[in-house]
Amino acid sequence: VSLAVPEEPSRHGQPRTWKLVLQYDGTAFVGWQRQAEGESIQRLLEEALERLDGRPVKVVGAGRTDAGVHALGQVASACLAREVQPSELQRALNAMLPREIRITAAEAAPSGFHARYDARSKTYRYLVVTGDIVSPFAWRYAWHVKQPLQIDAMSRAAGALAGRHDFAAFQATGTDVKTTIRTVTSSVVTATRPGGAVVSPAWAADMPGDETAIAYEISGDGFLRHMVRNIVGTLVEIGIGRRDESSIAATLASRDRGTAGPTAPAHGLYLVRVDYS
Amino acid sequence: VSLAVPEEPSRHGQPRTWKLVLQYDGTAFVGWQRQAEGESIQRLLEEALERLDGRPVKVVGAGRTDAGVHALGQVASACLAREVQPSELQRALNAMLPREIRITAAEAAPSGFHARYDARSKTYRYLVVTGDIVSPFAWRYAWHVKQPLQIDAMSRAAGALAGRHDFAAFQATGTDVKTTIRTVTSSVVTATRPGGAVVSPAWAADMPGDETAIAYEISGDGFLRHMVRNIVGTLVEIGIGRRDESSIAATLASRDRGTAGPTAPAHGLYLVRVDYS
Repeated sequence: VSLAVPEEPSRHGQPRTWKLVLQYDGTAFVGWQRQAEGESIQRLLEEALERLDGRPVKVVGAGRTDAGVHALGQVASACLAREVQPSELQRALNAMLPREIRITAAEAAPSGFHARYDARSKTYRYLVVTGDIVSPFAWRYAWHVKQPLQIDAMSRAAGALAGRHDFAAFQATGTDVKTTIRTVTSSVVTATRPGGAVVSPAWAADMPGDETAIAYEISGDGFLRHMVRNIVGTLVEIGIGRRDESSIAATLASRDRGTAGPTAPAHGLYLVRVDYS
Repeated sequence: VSLAVPEEPSRHGQPRTWKLVLQYDGTAFVGWQRQAEGESIQRLLEEALERLDGRPVKVVGAGRTDAGVHALGQVASACLAREVQPSELQRALNAMLPREIRITAAEAAPSGFHARYDARSKTYRYLVVTGDIVSPFAWRYAWHVKQPLQIDAMSRAAGALAGRHDFAAFQATGTDVKTTIRTVTSSVVTATRPGGAVVSPAWAADMPGDETAIAYEISGDGFLRHMVRNIVGTLVEIGIGRRDESSIAATLASRDRGTAGPTAPAHGLYLVRVDYS
């Protein structure tokens, strides 16, 4: 039997475990994870690493972002047999990957480092723009809600989610996990003019005047499927006055997806940061 | 002979002249102007107006932006036979146009208003980002220059272009115009962290630390073909030290395209504003 995969590393010594930090514009991808059809970030990264290492490479991502979701600080782990300098690995990967994906850091990690299992905390950000018109430069990167939002009400409701709770009400239906209890360490809504949070001042200075940008940021020890997007869908209903801000506690307590708001679209969501011990 | 085009407006009264202000992300277009192949902003706008007016409509743009060039405040003029409220015209056009193009204002203009001939002044902005890596969210919207730029030198050189000059050295070769003399009323380079000018703080806060964003803004009574991009190509050569800042006066005086720098790429350029008397 001829093996394309060497059973031993091609150089002496153990394979080295790597920690890669990456950003991506999720617009054109089917998501982080390999799918039968379409381009995934995982597949492109694995293919690039395979070209470098001369053998199949398995990449683990800290967060399996859905189709259309962006990343500012996704973390991936992989083992490489070939010895390479961190800066050289980063440069080579960026040369092979499309410009929608950038490796912003590459460093050697302790043997056995696992980007998903070892993650202690993750931070997501969700951007919403309001107003009649959404800038041609913002529509791929923020959820456009036409109605004005009561940001104080959203902000108070968001704060009520901080802490250790059962987030079953905000989990996508049909998901099977051992526990739906998670600890949210921070859950904050901030309002800003579009120049502040979504579109640059370079662009926003020239947009008509009624639009606002809102950023929701949440950190926690783990997230259920669609949890951030379901929270944002609920917060936006509070912001437009369709739902009372005080109802969020009852929604949480219900553990019933049917009591929460709709799932906010993927293209406003960013995986911002993954923290390790 | 059967005429698809009614010779008279379909309602009583004169056709009304309209002034439309629009933004577009130029990435996917062949430019403002209709071409034999590919999608142009002019064609999409004319097709939308034709659907509204029920007859062919000719649209004039203040600036014939090239393929890939963006707009924050392009102005177009057109005559419509059908009576319509400004807000309704804006809404209907935005409903028909792709999200890459937004009508940010629609207003009735004096009869005979011509977006190009009547323009008194135009303002363009050009964005440059420097650093090893360009954010996945910025590469379509700014020119990526790896080398650090000496911004003070660029700024002084830019200032030397203000005034009434013969800009033949910065005109694309093979262009035939009556005069290459133009008045530049403002020519300014400003440096900023990426969060300030190109990428939003939401994104930039998470980028590695060595990148800078530079905005060049120029206003004048008219611009030669590729004039802004050729000026930027020259300023960037000054910024990286390949060209002395004091040479810009000699370049201008030479009236020779060969003495100026390369043409900066289209995707960093924005038509920001068009002013009328």
